[in-house]
Amino acid sequence: MTDTDAVRRYVADHRQSLYDDLDAWLRIPSISADPAHADDVRRSADWLAGRFRAAGFPTVEVWPTEGQPAVFAEWPADDPAAPTAVVYGHHDVQPVDPLELWETPPFEPTVRGEELFARGAIDDKGQVLYHFLGLAAALETTGRTAPPVTLRFVVEGEEEFGSPNFARLLRDHRDRLDCDVVVVSDTGIHDRETPSMCTGMRGLTYCQIDLHGPDVDLHSGMFGGAVPNPATALAHLLAGLHDDSGRVTLPGFYDRVVALTDRERELMARLPFDESGFLRTAASRATTGEAGFTTLERIGARPTCEVNGLWGGYTGPGQKTIIPTDAHAKVSFRLVADQEPAEVEAAMRAYVDRAVPPGIDAHVEFFGGGVRPCLTPIDHPAVQAATRAMHKAFGKEILYTREGGSGPEADLADILGAPVVFVGVGLPDDRIHAPNERVVLPMLLTGAEAVAHLWDELAGALA
Amino acid sequence: MTDTDAVRRYVADHRQSLYDDLDAWLRIPSISADPAHADDVRRSADWLAGRFRAAGFPTVEVWPTEGQPAVFAEWPADDPAAPTAVVYGHHDVQPVDPLELWETPPFEPTVRGEELFARGAIDDKGQVLYHFLGLAAALETTGRTAPPVTLRFVVEGEEEFGSPNFARLLRDHRDRLDCDVVVVSDTGIHDRETPSMCTGMRGLTYCQIDLHGPDVDLHSGMFGGAVPNPATALAHLLAGLHDDSGRVTLPGFYDRVVALTDRERELMARLPFDESGFLRTAASRATTGEAGFTTLERIGARPTCEVNGLWGGYTGPGQKTIIPTDAHAKVSFRLVADQEPAEVEAAMRAYVDRAVPPGIDAHVEFFGGGVRPCLTPIDHPAVQAATRAMHKAFGKEILYTREGGSGPEADLADILGAPVVFVGVGLPDDRIHAPNERVVLPMLLTGAEAVAHLWDELAGALA
Repeated sequence: MTDTDAVRRYVADHRQSLYDDLDAWLRIPSISADPAHADDVRRSADWLAGRFRAAGFPTVEVWPTEGQPAVFAEWPADDPAAPTAVVYGHHDVQPVDPLELWETPPFEPTVRGEELFARGAIDDKGQVLYHFLGLAAALETTGRTAPPVTLRFVVEGEEEFGSPNFARLLRDHRDRLDCDVVVVSDTGIHDRETPSMCTGMRGLTYCQIDLHGPDVDLHSGMFGGAVPNPATALAHLLAGLHDDSGRVTLPGFYDRVVALTDRERELMARLPFDESGFLRTAASRATTGEAGFTTLERIGARPTCEVNGLWGGYTGPGQKTIIPTDAHAKVSFRLVADQEPAEVEAAMRAYVDRAVPPGIDAHVEFFGGGVRPCLTPIDHPAVQAATRAMHKAFGKEILYTREGGSGPEADLADILGAPVVFVGVGLPDDRIHAPNERVVLPMLLTGAEAVAHLWDELAGALA
Repeated sequence: MTDTDAVRRYVADHRQSLYDDLDAWLRIPSISADPAHADDVRRSADWLAGRFRAAGFPTVEVWPTEGQPAVFAEWPADDPAAPTAVVYGHHDVQPVDPLELWETPPFEPTVRGEELFARGAIDDKGQVLYHFLGLAAALETTGRTAPPVTLRFVVEGEEEFGSPNFARLLRDHRDRLDCDVVVVSDTGIHDRETPSMCTGMRGLTYCQIDLHGPDVDLHSGMFGGAVPNPATALAHLLAGLHDDSGRVTLPGFYDRVVALTDRERELMARLPFDESGFLRTAASRATTGEAGFTTLERIGARPTCEVNGLWGGYTGPGQKTIIPTDAHAKVSFRLVADQEPAEVEAAMRAYVDRAVPPGIDAHVEFFGGGVRPCLTPIDHPAVQAATRAMHKAFGKEILYTREGGSGPEADLADILGAPVVFVGVGLPDDRIHAPNERVVLPMLLTGAEAVAHLWDELAGALA
């Protein structure tokens, strides 16, 4: 078993190796969204593969995709009965514009005080790199020659581009990624004083609604008040998606929703939450939402429906007196465990069919098949093991959060069929996706400590 | 008093003069919307001024505006106590594209059977020209040297361009246009077998609603369900404008509406109405509207609210998961007598203020000050006089219609402060504003007969 003090000392003593890794890898502008940087993304994969080899991983492979490559690395446990963990991260980074807002060049890592500034510093290269220091600390301080779990890393190269090929990659390599737990190393904590662990991410299903009324735009003087107007029908349809308490009206929408337990609500309520700061970040002047829930619960643990866009008829300057022929909307649902995208899609189609009046034709198209929500309950042994590892590293109680958005984690949970735990040390003000992205270097050292303890904890919990 | 048979004979005998006028005037492409035809519109005004002089009008003037000129002509009655009628028409025409759909060139008047094809044939040159034949018939068959009412014509040159300078023109020449009745010579009858007279036109007020939520587009995963969405707020606002019976919900909206009398409803119900033909024309698959009213009543005699357009947020292909910062709509109201645009506008502003939730800012802008509805009751002496004149010409009972749209008639009624009567002989299938516009020549002869009788009837009724 790892020793808290020994690990802390090791990590502190060897922190320069982490800093050297950061300086080298962050200089590679692995922007996946920009075809001009395709070679850089490949260089980034090669650099990481080399780093895995240097760390002693017996198996290291660069896996091509139809887009950018992922890096796979494996280090089996000595005990063939030991559980297997898949660690997920990504080696690509966001674009950097507007470049002029960067105080130092995004691909010239610059340390100021305890912060290091560079694109990818925390999202996600820093959170991949602390695994090397953490694993070295675990091995050196315990005298072992292999980790106590079989470790498999899959570090993709298209996360900042929507992971278009990731699900396919997981399916193609399903056997190589067989595991008992997935550790996602790409998230953050509530704030620097409040270490926490994400336990779930919302899913998504997204559709476009097309309503068609008269086959031509009609003169509203000659026909107004006598034929159905698709823009009005759209307004009724969209307005009817929520009731007065902010709940989504689709029949059965909440049937599968895993309710927050009293314990979860109590722990979530202990997360410091600054409503005015939230409003500032949102640039909004009010909060709203489903009655009976806090803002943090609403954005993490409750399903929602949002109108993402709408259009139809005359939208130019001044006036044009028409009854439009068409009206359209983009509508998305954020889903929580155990909602199924396909069921929500069917309910939405049925709702639209019922909602449109005679004379209006409706077409509903869902994009991309939806993203299933993922949730690992806080009392799951893997979450408890990760909580203990983080507690050792932070020296503080670990609270729990849920995240409102969703990334490739849902694919990991779905395709690999394993519980997902989120171990991350990002801070809310790290400016990911923005100019002057930074990492607070002591956070990375704490991350290294956390994962140094993690494998022993998981080996014990999942044995 | 004019004699029906004598007028009919005179008109028939002299119809060639009308046809010659048509052939000459319709060759001038007086398209007011196209700056390239500005000279043609001026030529058209000059042609018409010459025609008034040739007809014996003692005063003929071309009135310039900031746009295209109008033609004014006056022929005083011998009796200084005789009432005064202002006749309204326009000498500009619609554009002609798509040109390739015309079977004969739009400015080469072509007669096939009883139809004459040309742009402006019925809208509105034909309906201005039959006044010359009608007035000549009245004078010749009665042996008078002046009309029994003081006749003042104002024939504008920008009607097909929205009459942007017409209200100003009327105000500037208010004293020259003083009158007891306005005769609009720019409308039609219900169908060829059902002569009818329009008695009112709906007014209009048109606004744009701008809703502003968060100052930036927000990630719907991170903020969805927790901040007010302006697109959803817009949907609620627009959906709330009508109740379940299709009535507009603005408080006081119907307070000033002059109800249809039983007699009006009975007469209107006798107008042949082909619902399937209406739907074909509308290219719509259903009728709808305010409960308790027929389609003809809904489009002519009842006020309405229509959404003319809406937009906001993401409208491109596929998906973008945002809460939009803004949402917008164009909303117009068709008004009927005695609704006041300013009152409806105030009610709408108050409604929007109440309808938007906390965190959404609303801005409502009304365009152009609105158009007041106009209505001359069927029992008004001027309407009855015009009905008698049309009855003599058509030899059939004259029914009554109302028109859903509105043009410069409202300005005429408002600024000149006189009742408006509509004497017109257009047919629903004359293809005004479309390729192959035509006039049915016998209809113009009937129009000439109607106005031959009209001045005597009005002189008697308004004395």
